Amino acid sequence: MVARKGVNAVEATHVNAITRAATTIMDSHLGVGVNVDQPFLADKTIPSSQVSVILGVNGELEGQIICSMDEPTACSVVGSMMGGMEISQIDDMGWSAIQEFGNWIAGTTATELSREEVNIDVTPPVINEGGSTFRSPESFITLPLNSSIGELLVHVSVKRR
Amino acid sequence: MVARKGVNAVEATHVNAITRAATTIMDSHLGVGVNVDQPFLADKTIPSSQVSVILGVNGELEGQIICSMDEPTACSVVGSMMGGMEISQIDDMGWSAIQEFGNWIAGTTATELSREEVNIDVTPPVINEGGSTFRSPESFITLPLNSSIGELLVHVSVKRR
Repeated sequence: MVARKGVNAVEATHVNAITRAATTIMDSHLGVGVNVDQPFLADKTIPSSQVSVILGVNGELEGQIICSMDEPTACSVVGSMMGGMEISQIDDMGWSAIQEFGNWIAGTTATELSREEVNIDVTPPVINEGGSTFRSPESFITLPLNSSIGELLVHVSVKRR
Repeated sequence: MVARKGVNAVEATHVNAITRAATTIMDSHLGVGVNVDQPFLADKTIPSSQVSVILGVNGELEGQIICSMDEPTACSVVGSMMGGMEISQIDDMGWSAIQEFGNWIAGTTATELSREEVNIDVTPPVINEGGSTFRSPESFITLPLNSSIGELLVHVSVKRR
């Protein structure tokens, strides 16, 4: 992949690694093909899309990766993880599945970044549910992942330590 | 301090260190005396009190520390940081102040835990604004800190790596 508009060279490496991680998870774990739209540089403030999985990043990079989706998409993610079930509401088992989805993204992101010789630790996921706003000291780069089960927005706010 | 009801021995050490960190910041940086109420073991789900500062923890412990407060308390924290100004609404500079407050808590928590020979990294803070719910794979322990400028709830969800 190449560096994209609004994303500088160093960041593009990270963005591409995180994009590979998210698309790999959607494809290999959920069997869902993904189109990655142009990443864009958001402000330091982003809206949450009802269900957000927050992953804290420490190590050579530090900050957050926030995977945000609306509730129907979250239901589809849970349904796909449970082998294609139709889910209309997320119960405790469903939230555990969303957390596991977050763990997958976290683990794969760490692996993909280590291939770029960037070593990070990622926290266990915490989920934020409800309409709210995130504010970070650093601007977010947003990766829009479009799939047949809905849109996943991956918001990345990290800096070199 | 001693281990408290509902909190096991290992966790009590962490809880006490985090309590010391938060009370030190409120006292020495904001000049606000704090009473610490009995910590309680919450569920894996907690409500956000309008303004939450999320700190990711990696290292020997991993998880999250979430400092949650209502908006009037957040305004008072910002006002105290700005030398006693009266603040009725949080602007960009105010949000930066809240992030800095998060950084103080993060840094002091890491220092206090290192005194207990527990080494952790803490991410830069991300703020969540708005009524929402947090869900963690591990139960939260909630430390209620009462002060003249309002209540600060410190929600801790960490486990040994």
